[in-house]
Amino acid sequence: MATINPMSLQHPTIAIIAAGALGSYYGARLVQHHHTVHFLMRSDAAHIKQNGLTIKSHKGDFTLPPEKLHIHSDPSTMPKADLAIIALKSTANAHLDRLLPPILTPDTLLLTLQNGLGNEEKLASFTDPKNVYGGVAFTCINRLSPGLIDHSSHGLIRIGAHHRNESSAPTLTRLAEIFSASNIDCQIMENLQQARWEKLLWNIPFNGLSAALDQTTDKLLATVEGTQLVRQIMQDVITAASAANITINPDLIESHITNTKKMGAYYTSSHVDRQNHRPLEVDALFTLPLKTAEKANLNTPYLKTLHHQIKIVDTNAT
Amino acid sequence: MATINPMSLQHPTIAIIAAGALGSYYGARLVQHHHTVHFLMRSDAAHIKQNGLTIKSHKGDFTLPPEKLHIHSDPSTMPKADLAIIALKSTANAHLDRLLPPILTPDTLLLTLQNGLGNEEKLASFTDPKNVYGGVAFTCINRLSPGLIDHSSHGLIRIGAHHRNESSAPTLTRLAEIFSASNIDCQIMENLQQARWEKLLWNIPFNGLSAALDQTTDKLLATVEGTQLVRQIMQDVITAASAANITINPDLIESHITNTKKMGAYYTSSHVDRQNHRPLEVDALFTLPLKTAEKANLNTPYLKTLHHQIKIVDTNAT
Repeated sequence: MATINPMSLQHPTIAIIAAGALGSYYGARLVQHHHTVHFLMRSDAAHIKQNGLTIKSHKGDFTLPPEKLHIHSDPSTMPKADLAIIALKSTANAHLDRLLPPILTPDTLLLTLQNGLGNEEKLASFTDPKNVYGGVAFTCINRLSPGLIDHSSHGLIRIGAHHRNESSAPTLTRLAEIFSASNIDCQIMENLQQARWEKLLWNIPFNGLSAALDQTTDKLLATVEGTQLVRQIMQDVITAASAANITINPDLIESHITNTKKMGAYYTSSHVDRQNHRPLEVDALFTLPLKTAEKANLNTPYLKTLHHQIKIVDTNAT
Repeated sequence: MATINPMSLQHPTIAIIAAGALGSYYGARLVQHHHTVHFLMRSDAAHIKQNGLTIKSHKGDFTLPPEKLHIHSDPSTMPKADLAIIALKSTANAHLDRLLPPILTPDTLLLTLQNGLGNEEKLASFTDPKNVYGGVAFTCINRLSPGLIDHSSHGLIRIGAHHRNESSAPTLTRLAEIFSASNIDCQIMENLQQARWEKLLWNIPFNGLSAALDQTTDKLLATVEGTQLVRQIMQDVITAASAANITINPDLIESHITNTKKMGAYYTSSHVDRQNHRPLEVDALFTLPLKTAEKANLNTPYLKTLHHQIKIVDTNAT
């Protein structure tokens, strides 16, 4: 058993695995606030090594020149990390078998910012589960072009321990300090799964219906029937959450709907994936939540219909 | 009360209201077999008056020259009809208020070949309900270009009376004679609603899912989950049918699925409507079946989800 020592987080070496839009944004904020960050990236690595990384943000734009950045296109060139932030699409989780081991020590903390269920469990296969933390990012971040990231709204990360233990409270406090001091809003959750399911309450109907029907979120809410269907699916998510011993306040349904109406013609990440013929995050966002309900013999027909439709679209879109 | 006299069908004047692909095909077959047919049509009228009507059919191709055709673009030029075949999209039913009265006598028989529910009821508002008949067409017919219709497979029409009465049996016999003698397979149904619901068993899942997800029928059946969803929706249709006192043999589920797999990458009419930004047949195919279940307090969540999704797509597609 490794002992967790938040002292390793005093001047941590941070790895971003891997830096798409989300990982680039949060990594750039950490660099801006004088942390040592190593970015693993694929297609944009050469461009960013040459031209740096620019963040357009509603909290203020900034550019990091190449000399302030550590960009890697292979994990073998990276140093061992004190903190690895996992920001890969969950559809690429199989690549972690190759990407993670080169940067891990027995004490490396792993923080996944990925969507949905099952990601902490995957990380726990690489290290002591006490080293695994999760973060739920409530934010709108898109890659505009190589080296140019748009952070259009929000930005809060809710973090929690995968396995709560004696060292998780000080570790979470230190992680929250690091983020908050880097202009990233951060909230510590007693129960990480609570945050996961509260985000699923939004992701499942909106990512699901937008990708299945190929419609932006405003269109989903433009009819009485569409709004009613969103509510029915959310009720099923609350039912599924109950099977995981998570109680979601049903008032969240109407506040999610009200907030989504304000977002206008929003393209969810799953909708963007469909339009770009990329695999959808089926397991993390849909299959594992449905299985949670089914294992407990709970009937969630609206969630089930959407899951099956997402399978149809995912199988044929790529 | 008008009395139905099948004698009026010995040498009937037949009107096709209106002649899209389906109406043009069946009308052309009747002309080919020496019946007097008046076609009401919109966009293709001028072209067909000039060039005639060509049918490509798996039962043999044929062309009707202009001199053998009576083409109208307005009902005011048409004679009173003994038999009016209604082949309008149900989404255009409001136009019947203008199109039908000029050709009706108290004895005109009305036969709707439209899809779904509610069409006979609409026709019954124009005449004695005893004059109203319905036909369910099992066929693949598409318009290839102006004046060119493709009849690629099947062709059976099942006909029945809207209100069974003492004259409906001889009338149906005569209608079946007319069709059969014109190379159109025809079956008389004791219960018209039985035929309607058995076709809905196919239309609801396949038209519905193909239009909602923008996928051809082969894609709907390419995954275990897709096939399972089709079955769940069909079970809900059987439940809805039971509220209309219609018993559907559940074996039809697997035979519909098997036959659909043989059809390959088929575009349903609702899918074609979505792709062409035309209104979908929401009421006839989805809303009235769902209401049938809901009035009887039957729970049909898969049908309901699909209905709500079709409303979303229909509202935003046109």
